Amino acid sequence: MIDLPNPRTIHDIETPAVLIDIDRATANIARAQANADKHRLKLRPHIKTHKLPYFARQQVDAGAVGITCQKIGEVEVMAEAGLADIFLPYNILGRVKLERLHALHGKITLSVTTDSAETLAGLAATFTDAGHRLKVLVECDTGMGRCGVQTAAEALELAKGIDRAAGLSFGGLMTYPAAGRAAEADTWLFEARDMLKDAGLDCQTVSSGGTPDIWRSGDTKVVTEYRPGTYIYLDRYQVAKGVGGIDDCALTVLSTVVSHPTPTRAILDAGSKAMSSDTLGLPDFGELVSIPGALVTGLSEEHGTVTLSGDAKLSIGQRVRVLPDHVCVVTNLFDTVHLISGETVVDILPVAARGRLT
Amino acid sequence: MIDLPNPRTIHDIETPAVLIDIDRATANIARAQANADKHRLKLRPHIKTHKLPYFARQQVDAGAVGITCQKIGEVEVMAEAGLADIFLPYNILGRVKLERLHALHGKITLSVTTDSAETLAGLAATFTDAGHRLKVLVECDTGMGRCGVQTAAEALELAKGIDRAAGLSFGGLMTYPAAGRAAEADTWLFEARDMLKDAGLDCQTVSSGGTPDIWRSGDTKVVTEYRPGTYIYLDRYQVAKGVGGIDDCALTVLSTVVSHPTPTRAILDAGSKAMSSDTLGLPDFGELVSIPGALVTGLSEEHGTVTLSGDAKLSIGQRVRVLPDHVCVVTNLFDTVHLISGETVVDILPVAARGRLT
Repeated sequence: MIDLPNPRTIHDIETPAVLIDIDRATANIARAQANADKHRLKLRPHIKTHKLPYFARQQVDAGAVGITCQKIGEVEVMAEAGLADIFLPYNILGRVKLERLHALHGKITLSVTTDSAETLAGLAATFTDAGHRLKVLVECDTGMGRCGVQTAAEALELAKGIDRAAGLSFGGLMTYPAAGRAAEADTWLFEARDMLKDAGLDCQTVSSGGTPDIWRSGDTKVVTEYRPGTYIYLDRYQVAKGVGGIDDCALTVLSTVVSHPTPTRAILDAGSKAMSSDTLGLPDFGELVSIPGALVTGLSEEHGTVTLSGDAKLSIGQRVRVLPDHVCVVTNLFDTVHLISGETVVDILPVAARGRLT
Repeated sequence: MIDLPNPRTIHDIETPAVLIDIDRATANIARAQANADKHRLKLRPHIKTHKLPYFARQQVDAGAVGITCQKIGEVEVMAEAGLADIFLPYNILGRVKLERLHALHGKITLSVTTDSAETLAGLAATFTDAGHRLKVLVECDTGMGRCGVQTAAEALELAKGIDRAAGLSFGGLMTYPAAGRAAEADTWLFEARDMLKDAGLDCQTVSSGGTPDIWRSGDTKVVTEYRPGTYIYLDRYQVAKGVGGIDDCALTVLSTVVSHPTPTRAILDAGSKAMSSDTLGLPDFGELVSIPGALVTGLSEEHGTVTLSGDAKLSIGQRVRVLPDHVCVVTNLFDTVHLISGETVVDILPVAARGRLT
């Protein structure tokens, strides 16, 4: 926590700044947990969206079985903050990273993934204590086209290798499905799980994820654990996907109109260094909250171009709140975020896991 | 400087990491300065690309008249590091920012811009000492479509306002021209400069910028000062614009192949959190240095997807260097950069002006 008596309300905050509506975030956490509970699905939220021990703890307190991180540096931050059960679905390679992983395994309940013999070999050589095995899941490419084994037969081969390694234990299957293609992923995982079962390898966990499909996550016949990230804040992309409404979005970027060169063009002090160029395919970079017809149509590093249509009006010096397309990349750009309730600033938190790239 | 005995060579660096080839950066600085000198153009490099006092000092030592920053926070970092002449071409609005600007004006030679009566009013109310005036230039939109007055008549009106304010002095005109349209900008500025001259207002400085047009910057009939940024590192976009060759590019992202799920798809541990999604319009996100046919065709936050064609080969665990499309946004994503000469690590520097958004 930063010792800063001011700002007391959002009107006192220097722009650009990130505002997190804690009431909305808390409601989003509760809604997702209730849905998971209803479907007897374990929830293991991905911290990439908030990067804050504050919300990781709140997610676990609400009923999550643990958290998910994407890089060792993030695990280190969260473990240091007291998070006790962390899943790292990433191929960890190289002596230094494997040593860091080994050190974490001594402190928390840790699990990782592999999708290759090379990654497995490194894990098997580093973790050799049969009395304190590292749990390893096999990553499966069920349609996303990123990491993961391509066939159930490959998954079986890797699972056997994990099972043979003295210091490792086979934990199950993991996938990140393509958005909207969870059913396809289900079919893939179902086949692999049964093939492994026939070989005597039980999948303790079958882990899937993704906020776009969160309200359909209970339809599964095979997934046991779900790793959504963005659901805590939501954003324009998730609203476009129907996950929630504008009024459920917890993160906005507070910005000031610094220029208004033409009647339909205004310029904000938040550019790609504040909002990122990542639109996830949406045609614009963001929209101004409660100002219909005011869209962020261009970003350079320190300028956001707003195009005004219809009755939308702005004035130079006016402070506005921008709803970005993709919030996860926004929190990575700020050293601190402002927690708010209504317009009151409740706290200012350092983004503890920001920039933990290695 | 970070007290870190290792790494001694790039082979010891944990990935992902930013590498800066200081020999190439130094050559790029010298080449641009020589070009400016030849054309009797003052050079005032934009620090947004490197965000390092180390290179800002080197640029001034090479002959630059000062530096350019885009946010007050960047000016504060650079002033603290001893940079004595800083141009901030941005509309500064609001009590707190104006107070910070006032404090800086007491320490360094500072100049700013305005493009509106509102910004001018704030500056005029804050700077009232006729014995120590703040130099203010008028920002002109010469075709870029971002900030700036739209007509020479508007520029004249604002210049008169600056000239009337007791604590301000009119410094001239500033523009950021659209890439490749410097000649159009020249015509605009020429007309405005002459209109102001007829009104008794001399333009001490006419400032333009942009690396894409740097080798044509001497063709001007009106610009007196040039603010290039990216020229120090260069990147794929600048190479595409013909500013330099691949072998002139000083910044690469060191990364490790963490997965190789199909013969033509490999995955790097550098995603949009390391390279940004900003392609500046190029079709791919980057290319692997010295591996023809290996292009970064997709980015998610912690994964970079490489598509291999022709004879391109990669193996899991292999370390590669990626040339990104747009380097300025990359340096903003890392807390430190590694300065290298050949493969030797010369120093590790904190990116002092990273994330200075306000």
